[in-house]
Amino acid sequence: MARKSVKQENSAVMPVENPAASKGRGRSKTNNTGVMSGTGKSKLKIIPLGGLEQIGMNITAFEYEDDIIVVDCGLAFPSDDMLGIDLVIPDVTYLEENLDKVRGFFITHGHEDHIGSLPYILQKVPVPVYGTKLTMAIIEGKLAEHGVPRGVKRKVVRYGQSINAGNFRVEFIRINHSIVDAASLAIFTPVGTIVHTGDFKIDYTPVFGEPADLSRFAELGKKGVLAMLCESTNVFREGFTMSERTVGKTFDNLFAENQDRRIIVATFASNVDRVQQIINSAHRYGRKVVVDGRSMVNIIGAASELGYISIPDGCLISIEDLKRYPKEKTVLITTGSQGESMAALSRMAANIHRKVTIESGDTIILSSTPIPGNEKAVAKVINDLSLLGAKVIFQDTHVSGHACQEEIKLMYSLVRPRYSIPVHGEYRHLQAHAQLVQELGIDSHRTFVMHSGDVLEMDEESAKINGHVPVGSIMVDGLGVGDVGNIVLRDRQTLAQHGIVIAVVVLERGSNQLISGPDIVTRGFVYVRENEELMEEAKSVVLGSIIDCQNRRITDWSKIKNTIRDDLNDYLWKKMKRSPMILPIIMEA
Amino acid sequence: MARKSVKQENSAVMPVENPAASKGRGRSKTNNTGVMSGTGKSKLKIIPLGGLEQIGMNITAFEYEDDIIVVDCGLAFPSDDMLGIDLVIPDVTYLEENLDKVRGFFITHGHEDHIGSLPYILQKVPVPVYGTKLTMAIIEGKLAEHGVPRGVKRKVVRYGQSINAGNFRVEFIRINHSIVDAASLAIFTPVGTIVHTGDFKIDYTPVFGEPADLSRFAELGKKGVLAMLCESTNVFREGFTMSERTVGKTFDNLFAENQDRRIIVATFASNVDRVQQIINSAHRYGRKVVVDGRSMVNIIGAASELGYISIPDGCLISIEDLKRYPKEKTVLITTGSQGESMAALSRMAANIHRKVTIESGDTIILSSTPIPGNEKAVAKVINDLSLLGAKVIFQDTHVSGHACQEEIKLMYSLVRPRYSIPVHGEYRHLQAHAQLVQELGIDSHRTFVMHSGDVLEMDEESAKINGHVPVGSIMVDGLGVGDVGNIVLRDRQTLAQHGIVIAVVVLERGSNQLISGPDIVTRGFVYVRENEELMEEAKSVVLGSIIDCQNRRITDWSKIKNTIRDDLNDYLWKKMKRSPMILPIIMEA
Repeated sequence: MARKSVKQENSAVMPVENPAASKGRGRSKTNNTGVMSGTGKSKLKIIPLGGLEQIGMNITAFEYEDDIIVVDCGLAFPSDDMLGIDLVIPDVTYLEENLDKVRGFFITHGHEDHIGSLPYILQKVPVPVYGTKLTMAIIEGKLAEHGVPRGVKRKVVRYGQSINAGNFRVEFIRINHSIVDAASLAIFTPVGTIVHTGDFKIDYTPVFGEPADLSRFAELGKKGVLAMLCESTNVFREGFTMSERTVGKTFDNLFAENQDRRIIVATFASNVDRVQQIINSAHRYGRKVVVDGRSMVNIIGAASELGYISIPDGCLISIEDLKRYPKEKTVLITTGSQGESMAALSRMAANIHRKVTIESGDTIILSSTPIPGNEKAVAKVINDLSLLGAKVIFQDTHVSGHACQEEIKLMYSLVRPRYSIPVHGEYRHLQAHAQLVQELGIDSHRTFVMHSGDVLEMDEESAKINGHVPVGSIMVDGLGVGDVGNIVLRDRQTLAQHGIVIAVVVLERGSNQLISGPDIVTRGFVYVRENEELMEEAKSVVLGSIIDCQNRRITDWSKIKNTIRDDLNDYLWKKMKRSPMILPIIMEA
Repeated sequence: MARKSVKQENSAVMPVENPAASKGRGRSKTNNTGVMSGTGKSKLKIIPLGGLEQIGMNITAFEYEDDIIVVDCGLAFPSDDMLGIDLVIPDVTYLEENLDKVRGFFITHGHEDHIGSLPYILQKVPVPVYGTKLTMAIIEGKLAEHGVPRGVKRKVVRYGQSINAGNFRVEFIRINHSIVDAASLAIFTPVGTIVHTGDFKIDYTPVFGEPADLSRFAELGKKGVLAMLCESTNVFREGFTMSERTVGKTFDNLFAENQDRRIIVATFASNVDRVQQIINSAHRYGRKVVVDGRSMVNIIGAASELGYISIPDGCLISIEDLKRYPKEKTVLITTGSQGESMAALSRMAANIHRKVTIESGDTIILSSTPIPGNEKAVAKVINDLSLLGAKVIFQDTHVSGHACQEEIKLMYSLVRPRYSIPVHGEYRHLQAHAQLVQELGIDSHRTFVMHSGDVLEMDEESAKINGHVPVGSIMVDGLGVGDVGNIVLRDRQTLAQHGIVIAVVVLERGSNQLISGPDIVTRGFVYVRENEELMEEAKSVVLGSIIDCQNRRITDWSKIKNTIRDDLNDYLWKKMKRSPMILPIIMEA
């Protein structure tokens, strides 16, 4: 089959190497992807079903004729106004409505913002899931917890391997990230090749495995890439992200400086390489290692089984055996580097960890930087640990897993896509990404900053946003999926601000004569015992409302309730400048 | 009067210059302060009444025999768990109980975390207030809003001027900060001199006025300083804070690059120098300036009257006149650089500002960095503005107003205090500060990291923490000061998480027979219309509880309520894994 390049006319960081490659555009019935095109008239649709409007909810559909594939299936953590919500998953109505077309989920790596919604979404869209070894191991763990949806095939894919899915062929490419086994995807379609970077960095000296497969990206670029979806997390950072290996040197130094102290290191459970380096330093300095925190234990277990982490014999001990060793000969590796209230480190800081008590001889290393929004929680943990007498080290103990500007430019320079689709970031990140690639010669009409649900239609010749599919956020609260909506949230916000004032009366059936009450019950409003006068006045106000309604011959309960609500609201605002939720309840007797 | 130095025996960054100065320690009835000592046996007490436990609530009492002076009187903003609270002020029971001793408030500068509680505290502690010109102008504005407490004297103090207050003499020393007219204080006491830096930076090229009076600090240091309270905000930052003037150059560059666009700059209202520089750049580039946002208008007005800001004739226009000028010939200076939801910039971003509509031709400069905790709010504003098409610049447009490590070291090297009391920071900041001064030769037993309420007793010879006075946070919610306590807050937190489920029944007087109900009313729990079955089941559960109580001959209402609460709680947890607040209400008829 002839392999011809998609024309790079306006495109390209650098000119297309072989001018002959640009022949035959628009006429060919075959293309560079090795996949037969259909009529040659269909368009590829790229549809983010989450992302910009819901940071973390990374899920993108690719549709060509009767086939849809989906890249990633992440979850978002609730924003500050989503009170009581545990997590947020995408509304995949579009996939449900096109269920017979959906060929599978292709997962780039095992972080929550790329896999977290799978247990929920697979219930409604039970299609195969593809990913690399560790990615699939983490997914299996999640599915086991939630109950595996029936008949959902899961397949482990190797780097370099391709999966055929109808009109699509998807190749997994080796890339580096803050989790082992991360992949970029080359999606071969009848109209051209699409590259999805996933989350990535370029690490020439990774701790485990090999550097990103730059030559494959270059090869794809040379053959012609129609579009690239590239991540944007660190687009505001100049330069390049340091190698994970540099953190190992930092640990060695810290272990050397703290030889007479117990060391506790908190980091992301999924950063297997980081844990490996801590273990390496521990072993080098003759310390025993304890792994603490549920997710840390789980992931290290999985990585260990897969051979992704190597632990010297006898180095790992159980937390129960900790007391058998001199403190300065031990290291605890634990979760909670983001100040998560229930994580092991937070429990140590709050002095409620059942097995570890922080002492003045402890050195605690937070090997992470706070994710935006977690700054105050992390600061609290640091302060609490310091107050317990520990030495806390939290600067220069972490490197990012995401590409900085020069790495993003490198990726574009290798892949040379005709179209750029910045992904994974807030609007300001995607916009900055779009500006960055302008410097590389990809002008604004070849860059698409897409909103969730936008449909980008594309063929060899052209690309434009054309249409919109329904998308949205579904809130998960306890066992409830989607039973909390905006009205409930708004009520929670009102309740959170000034509490609730309940006015109860019992009216006689028929006559509407007051039989009992009014009683006033409040929660989250004021301390009642110290405000009895206020409560008495509030009762008088409600009594006044009822008498007023009787005088005006109002018998409709909803009108009576509105009168009570308005009168009480006025009274409380004038008296206290507060607006609690006011809830009149009328009982009939 | 002989001026002799407090002995610097263990102290000092460098040796005392004149060894003779250390004569006579412990014997002298006079001292270097120019204030007669009493019996020579009394101790100075330094008592932070807020601070470490309540960041921002800066207020420190200094007590010697029958005299107390207070430095600053700040407020704290509510922490995330203080739902619905507007602001937090200190519990000054100690001052109230010693009212006849209190000689005055000495204010270092006009920021909220140093003056914000005055309108509340002066009601209870009506004593004189001292501060420099702009500081007092800002305080006057606040007092006018709240109603000036009767008989409270306010006095403007010049740099270099001293105020006598019983056993104390307080001198105001010129220092630099992100607000004009900031002062450090030298507090001369019978046992020695105390220096309180206030918030500070060293700016050799300030925009308005003169650099910090380094020679006065040096002079005090040479004569002998017993203790220094020094701020810690930037103690984690190496080097020194750049001059405010450098931001002016940045503005010039940005104005040059954006000559064809409207420019909107958001910054802190109180940073008069910053506003001056924006006006300078605007004038240089032939633009008219509009000042928007209530606090910005107020402070610029005050600064203007005092001659602290110079606005070229005709440069300032009203917001109503904005439309009379070409957009690219205008600049708006506004509030909201911290993403505060009601500030002008946030209203522009949300497209609800009544007079300004953001357009694609706008360049918006956020001249600030997010205060910890505001990161997400600021990001939201940036994203919203970007979505409206504006170009948003938020990096490298700000310098701090606080001293970095080298400036802190400089201050210690000049003042050479015997004792160090790190202030203004979280525990980790104060601890790092203590470590930093160890490098300067002030060892750990001469450094006091103090908790709110700790009493540090001090004389020429010694210092130790001895005792504790009552302190605390008083929450202000609307017009209520202190009427919201922990129980109310805990209720708000519960309500915020999962809302409230109210079960109402009407029981017959005497017999406790069910007359009406049970009715279930919920708010912030689930969307009722889609969960009618759940509501019906909940009613059955409550009915079951009542029948159960009847069968067990339970007539005590509180026991009946507890039964309802427990049963409903069990049911909802099993069914939904949620724990709303459950409120049983029994009415009698």
